[in-house]
Amino acid sequence: MDLLKERILGDGIVKPGNVLKVDSFLNHQMDIDLINKIGQEFKRLFADEPITKILTIEASGIGIACLTAQYFNVPVVFAKKSQSINLEGDVYSTKVESFTHKREYDVILSKKFLTAEDHVLIIDDFLANGCALRGLIDIVNYSGATIAGAGIVIEKGFQCGGKVIRETGIRLESLAIIESMTDDALTFA
Amino acid sequence: MDLLKERILGDGIVKPGNVLKVDSFLNHQMDIDLINKIGQEFKRLFADEPITKILTIEASGIGIACLTAQYFNVPVVFAKKSQSINLEGDVYSTKVESFTHKREYDVILSKKFLTAEDHVLIIDDFLANGCALRGLIDIVNYSGATIAGAGIVIEKGFQCGGKVIRETGIRLESLAIIESMTDDALTFA
Repeated sequence: MDLLKERILGDGIVKPGNVLKVDSFLNHQMDIDLINKIGQEFKRLFADEPITKILTIEASGIGIACLTAQYFNVPVVFAKKSQSINLEGDVYSTKVESFTHKREYDVILSKKFLTAEDHVLIIDDFLANGCALRGLIDIVNYSGATIAGAGIVIEKGFQCGGKVIRETGIRLESLAIIESMTDDALTFA
Repeated sequence: MDLLKERILGDGIVKPGNVLKVDSFLNHQMDIDLINKIGQEFKRLFADEPITKILTIEASGIGIACLTAQYFNVPVVFAKKSQSINLEGDVYSTKVESFTHKREYDVILSKKFLTAEDHVLIIDDFLANGCALRGLIDIVNYSGATIAGAGIVIEKGFQCGGKVIRETGIRLESLAIIESMTDDALTFA
């Protein structure tokens, strides 16, 4: 997706530790026009799938999932990152290690909102080592729902997440795959 | 907003401790059509304000803010609830007490994304004791931006938050104000 790649080149900032900051348009401040175009692109890519629900994870996946869901006419469900007193006991739960925060957390989804009849499109902003995405895949598998695929805005192609998930046979579509990045250069796959 | 009130009456669940669960359509599973209508209603209410940015707080405010922002043609900025290694040091920060989680947390926003030139519409899903909203107001005030107003989906009118904030002169528009709720009855103001 050229518009996205141009934006990453123009406004993304590479930080030590393989951190790519895109907080001016994607995950702190959000450019709604750009994200709507991202949603339209996900619709184009998964137009042949009978999707019934979009699944994401809090926090930065939610806005992207909601804007995308408009083009599929389906609800969004977002997994939560730790036990909340407002969630019923009846939840799907899995443990995930965070690349950004260097800690483990629980990913939780109420069983009411995902069933064996669902065809699920998973949406998230980033894919690096794939821990969050594998957590979401676990949850869909627990529910018995079908995984139609996963749509990722930015994949760090030099980390293992994408390879691991594609090898499981899950259809993974990343709109921008970064092949390498250093302080003064960023290349796409 | 009648459509919202009907939905609360039909699908909301009252839990002990004055908890209203609306997780089937607003803050865990999200009904995108309903939330788009909520966004249109916020646009109608604040059409006369020269809004440049919508501010919300993670996690459940983000989807509502993003769908609403489409009708204002402005970016969303969402405040984060604790220090992340991906946030620069240069942040606005305030402390907020959570009604849901019974603990205190930091609310943080990068200074890059709110300046004295901005006219800010604050959007959130719930208003109860008003702690989160007052935290967001603090952050706007630190930035020198103008607060155009606050749009809330559901206000618990029997808690003090709405009264406290209206007394400061801030324009507060809540689409459904709950006057009272018990296990078998819920009334709107």
